[in-house]
Amino acid sequence: RNTYKIAVIAGDGIGQETVPEGLKVLSAAARLFDIGLDFEEHDFASCDYYARHGEMMPGDWKSRIIDSDAIFFGAVGWPDTVPDHVSLWGSLLKFRREFDQYANLRPVRLMPGVPCPLAGKSPGDIDFWVVRENTEGEYSSIGGKIFEGTDRETVMQETVMTRQGVDRILRYAFEIAERTERKTLTSATKSNGISITMPYWDERVLEMAKSFPDIAVDKYHIDILTALFVLKPERFNVVVASNLFGDILSDLGPACTGTIGIAPSGNINPTRTFPSLFEPVHGSAPDIAGQGIANPVGQIWCGAMMLDHLGHPEAASAVVAAIESVLSDPERRTSDLGGEADTRGCGDAVLEAL
Amino acid sequence: RNTYKIAVIAGDGIGQETVPEGLKVLSAAARLFDIGLDFEEHDFASCDYYARHGEMMPGDWKSRIIDSDAIFFGAVGWPDTVPDHVSLWGSLLKFRREFDQYANLRPVRLMPGVPCPLAGKSPGDIDFWVVRENTEGEYSSIGGKIFEGTDRETVMQETVMTRQGVDRILRYAFEIAERTERKTLTSATKSNGISITMPYWDERVLEMAKSFPDIAVDKYHIDILTALFVLKPERFNVVVASNLFGDILSDLGPACTGTIGIAPSGNINPTRTFPSLFEPVHGSAPDIAGQGIANPVGQIWCGAMMLDHLGHPEAASAVVAAIESVLSDPERRTSDLGGEADTRGCGDAVLEAL
Ligand SMILES: CC(C)[C@H](C(=O)O)[C@@H](O)C(=O)O
Ligand SMILES: CC(C)[C@H](C(=O)O)[C@@H](O)C(=O)O
Repeated sequence: RNTYKIAVIAGDGIGQETVPEGLKVLSAAARLFDIGLDFEEHDFASCDYYARHGEMMPGDWKSRIIDSDAIFFGAVGWPDTVPDHVSLWGSLLKFRREFDQYANLRPVRLMPGVPCPLAGKSPGDIDFWVVRENTEGEYSSIGGKIFEGTDRETVMQETVMTRQGVDRILRYAFEIAERTERKTLTSATKSNGISITMPYWDERVLEMAKSFPDIAVDKYHIDILTALFVLKPERFNVVVASNLFGDILSDLGPACTGTIGIAPSGNINPTRTFPSLFEPVHGSAPDIAGQGIANPVGQIWCGAMMLDHLGHPEAASAVVAAIESVLSDPERRTSDLGGEADTRGCGDAVLEAL
Repeated sequence: RNTYKIAVIAGDGIGQETVPEGLKVLSAAARLFDIGLDFEEHDFASCDYYARHGEMMPGDWKSRIIDSDAIFFGAVGWPDTVPDHVSLWGSLLKFRREFDQYANLRPVRLMPGVPCPLAGKSPGDIDFWVVRENTEGEYSSIGGKIFEGTDRETVMQETVMTRQGVDRILRYAFEIAERTERKTLTSATKSNGISITMPYWDERVLEMAKSFPDIAVDKYHIDILTALFVLKPERFNVVVASNLFGDILSDLGPACTGTIGIAPSGNINPTRTFPSLFEPVHGSAPDIAGQGIANPVGQIWCGAMMLDHLGHPEAASAVVAAIESVLSDPERRTSDLGGEADTRGCGDAVLEAL
């Protein structure tokens, strides 16, 4: 029997409501599949913590979670009290960078019971992965302001791509494409406008493609690519993108399948040198926080991704199947999907289905 | 009777096919509304020109068109022979910058007869403007490569925002919002992740909003904003964005209304110090070029935007009305919209409707 240590960080807003549902389902899956999960809850990486301590995380945050096998994360951000760039660079983006979680992996899948905003699509039509570079690129904090307060005021921010950084995310994406049936990969670029970094990205894609001769590769500029997500989502299998483009595509993709309220994501350290982090795409949702109505499915689906990452794909599939059955039923899904359940009711329903 | 000098640049690919249709309709509108249009055609700013001269444009390109009242542009780009970043930085992006066309204006409007990829929408439901900064921001050519060919290879590219550059596009967008009924404006940002330039953008939006107390302003991060274009396009009125974000939103917006094949855009110099440039969003479309099947509506709609810019809104409306009538009829629209007409047939139909 394998036992894993899981750091649990509920964070802000609806993270406080969805994480307990996720844990409930994870515990049940662990019992069913004879997996040991030791949860260790942490109160840092939240704006509440910031209010009490003047920083998002304690100085020793790293040593307190570095020996976990994974991090089960809710959401972070409460812009009314802490500006987003402070709360996020002080927590989530630190994890990504310091634990070298260089791949952000997000499934885009049209699920039963979720009304699709695109006309004429059914479950099965849309099913692909967005693989996002998660540590460099457009998210660099290099830059600054000059001539402050004058008419000449100018701000600059550097995009930084390294060969190592680009190559490793491309390799990771190609390897995922190899394990799929369709064996195709799409690269997001903007080399016609962003004339230094993006042509370099294209170059590395061409180079990497040589090592994966069985994968058919195409590339689209990000502008037309967002258009194709809406017009022809069926054509995608694995989409690999820089940090910013991946951020955009992995919100747009789930939106095209009906809601970002149920999409999960993994911030993966593929070498397993450090723990990977699993968080729903939805964020802290201040507008509905505290009402007990948030949809817990994204959080629960994160649990499935985490089980898969830990080496238990059967347990992961069982959780996803339970989610699918609950989503098909208006009595068991939440109101954002036209259902009648509240957060806890929906979580209980997944538990039962499992 | 006003007479205007119009520089005509058909450029590459389907630009060669759509521009003649645009000119046909413009000439007719000019006759009907007693406007003088002198067209002067130029063969530069095309990859053909590049093949003959080794550069996209002659050294004196600027003096040859600077005294035009507007530029009527087809498309540029033929990646099989000239890399996109060469052809575009050597032509279109030069016009934008050297003629200080700092506002890129694109209507997003669901038109009759165009099948909407979003479920349950009808003409009238989606109708807004994307206002894109068009000269600075992420499209800077500052940066470079270091440690070339080694494992440490690193590329960098600077995003540059100036107070003047940001403020003038914001003012332009606020002024458009003031002329609309709904009086709302949405700012595209990413200040939670892009931690230097985007918080600055937000700051300037707040500052500018003080001068427009009757406009209700909101902001969304670009990732969720692309999601909202799909999930709630009705809510938008005027969306203002940086160069890159505006590029993305103004392809995604038209896609949400069915096709980027008919969307027009204006590269506007609001001070009228230099000519403005009108080009369809679709680009040169190498895959269908030369077949006579391209949809000319985007090009014709550009003509309407140009007439409006020159101070002839009645002529502009008449052209748009003619477009709407043609789009409603499968016999008169092109095959990309499930119609039966070819490029010329569709152009003739607009002419007749006018
Ligand atoms: C062709 C390209 C450089 C251009 C841009 O990115 O600005 C195009 O996408 C556009 O929107 O006009
Ligand atoms: C909250 C924000 C910094 C973050 C990002 O941009 O990476 C989020 O949008 C995400 O996708 O995880």
